[in-house]
Amino acid sequence: MLDRSRLYRITEKMREKGIPQIIISDSVSIFYLLGKRYYSGERMLALYVNESGDCRLVINRLTPVTEDLGVFVRSYDDVEDPVAILAEYVEKGKPVGVDKTWPAMFLLRLQKLCPSCTFENASVIVDKVRQIKDKAEQELMIESSRINDAVMAEVIPWAGRHLSEREYEAKVREIYRAHGIERVSFPPICAYGKDAADPHHMGDGTRPKRGDCVVLDIGGFYRDYASDMTRTVFVGEVSPRQREIYNIVLEANLRGIAAAKPGNRMKDVDAAARSYIEEMGFGEYFIHRTGHSIGLEDHEPGDAGALNDEVIEVGQCFSVEPGIYLPDEGIGVRIEDLVLITEDGCRVLNSYPKDIIVVEEE
Amino acid sequence: MLDRSRLYRITEKMREKGIPQIIISDSVSIFYLLGKRYYSGERMLALYVNESGDCRLVINRLTPVTEDLGVFVRSYDDVEDPVAILAEYVEKGKPVGVDKTWPAMFLLRLQKLCPSCTFENASVIVDKVRQIKDKAEQELMIESSRINDAVMAEVIPWAGRHLSEREYEAKVREIYRAHGIERVSFPPICAYGKDAADPHHMGDGTRPKRGDCVVLDIGGFYRDYASDMTRTVFVGEVSPRQREIYNIVLEANLRGIAAAKPGNRMKDVDAAARSYIEEMGFGEYFIHRTGHSIGLEDHEPGDAGALNDEVIEVGQCFSVEPGIYLPDEGIGVRIEDLVLITEDGCRVLNSYPKDIIVVEEE
Repeated sequence: MLDRSRLYRITEKMREKGIPQIIISDSVSIFYLLGKRYYSGERMLALYVNESGDCRLVINRLTPVTEDLGVFVRSYDDVEDPVAILAEYVEKGKPVGVDKTWPAMFLLRLQKLCPSCTFENASVIVDKVRQIKDKAEQELMIESSRINDAVMAEVIPWAGRHLSEREYEAKVREIYRAHGIERVSFPPICAYGKDAADPHHMGDGTRPKRGDCVVLDIGGFYRDYASDMTRTVFVGEVSPRQREIYNIVLEANLRGIAAAKPGNRMKDVDAAARSYIEEMGFGEYFIHRTGHSIGLEDHEPGDAGALNDEVIEVGQCFSVEPGIYLPDEGIGVRIEDLVLITEDGCRVLNSYPKDIIVVEEE
Repeated sequence: MLDRSRLYRITEKMREKGIPQIIISDSVSIFYLLGKRYYSGERMLALYVNESGDCRLVINRLTPVTEDLGVFVRSYDDVEDPVAILAEYVEKGKPVGVDKTWPAMFLLRLQKLCPSCTFENASVIVDKVRQIKDKAEQELMIESSRINDAVMAEVIPWAGRHLSEREYEAKVREIYRAHGIERVSFPPICAYGKDAADPHHMGDGTRPKRGDCVVLDIGGFYRDYASDMTRTVFVGEVSPRQREIYNIVLEANLRGIAAAKPGNRMKDVDAAARSYIEEMGFGEYFIHRTGHSIGLEDHEPGDAGALNDEVIEVGQCFSVEPGIYLPDEGIGVRIEDLVLITEDGCRVLNSYPKDIIVVEEE
């Protein structure tokens, strides 16, 4: 059922941006507004929204709409042209905002059918609204990360049990299922030693050896809201060099979190974490942004990165996850928590300890 | 490394269509040409191809290109505008073909940067080339389906073991892994009774009861090439009504296969299967197209459907999968094989029997 308060926040932002009509094609954004998930595969799915509040859903008949959504629904057959249907709703001669991921096949056709309109990428409208979690969403984010903490507690001992990375990943999924989580936020990352030094590593047949660092980056969906956290632990023993790197990343994580408060900019969070790592001489080994927004998706627009000037607002939720990656030394460390912005700073949604953990081999 | 014969077939088709330059963004099509898989997430990945044969890959630095691809590679940083880089390569004042799924955020920006160009959806160029499998691809499709037959043989006995649909799905994945297949073509469909009557059913906690039909629609990737087959079996016993429906679907499957030959049109395959089901009085219960093309993806453009006028060519590979779905009776039957088009007809890639199979309860 249409969430009128979310729609209101969207039409308000449309007026602010001077875009009188938008086409929402992102199925997660449609879910955000209508509370129902529709997957259309290669078939067009679009929610036309006018600044007047008028909403029209165009959806293939193969995905039956059986309940009252509170919006006008136009189902189409495979022999109809869904873009032509959409074009009827578009007010001619005015700008049309479309979602950033709308496939070219639909956009090019709509441009042809509405030559008097100008088109622009207007995803920022819904994205900015989705960024600010309402009360119900905040509770779900809190619970989702609480479960993730509990999962992490069960995941960590397996670092000493000589699973291959792929087996470890399967084990993590199994633990999520045992906690009632059927859908992971992303394929769990369980990376040993040299693999831990590659933040984009895909799990393979590698098994751990004594002295390896182990990056565990995991998350799951609880009632549609994602969790995401990283801990780095050590197998059997930890070297002085590993300890040094770990403590630098931990301090950067804490500094990033301290900068996560209303009024600061997203880039301040990045700078807080990054400047410390640079100061310690490892700037060139921190090769990604400090964090990303999260909610109905694991990665949502709005990153804690050097280029993001946006001012942080109450209700935002994002990750703080600095890392140092030294492939030549076979060392990689990342520590990640989610934060929820509050009036006076932030609430850290992960409480699993961040002390150095050495997992005994079994 | 660039496959020059595939590139040649693409530039030939570009000249035929009068599109002097295309932008390939689909990562599978890029893999098809370059033999390497790149995932760019939300970051732009594009291969500019000029009809002259000039190819330029624009790719984010986070995805390092470490080997010689046989094409010019331009890596960009997160602080650069990748679309502006692409715009430099585009010949101004000429048509530009883009992939059907290219996200609006890139297309709108390129339209702004190249106002003298016209843009069109040109996916059909690469899609048509990919549709015709070359010798090496044909061997891989054959082997992929051979493995799928072996997997199906192990999957079927589990129909009598009272797994929930979700447990059955997990079991199927386990059997694929035991056969060396890590990636399924799509989430395996294991649907009992009433659920089998919904071709879009997502597995849930349902368990089989005696007399249920069980639709098993499964596939996996072998060296990047997909398999996909469906068998419908019965738990403990089969009723006369189920037998009647099964035999109609089987005959439709055989008629569809008989129509799969060079010179016929794709819609003839659909008509051959559909007309028989209609004749038997079940036309309104066959609610999807008869088949889809397959190769590097499970669903590729080019369906065996009523609207597809394209003439079938040697080297095409597609599914023939008629079905009858009777939700009110709790009966659903689908039988699917893949065919590879040969000079004188087709080779059926699945050899698992299509007799009525009753699985004993254990």
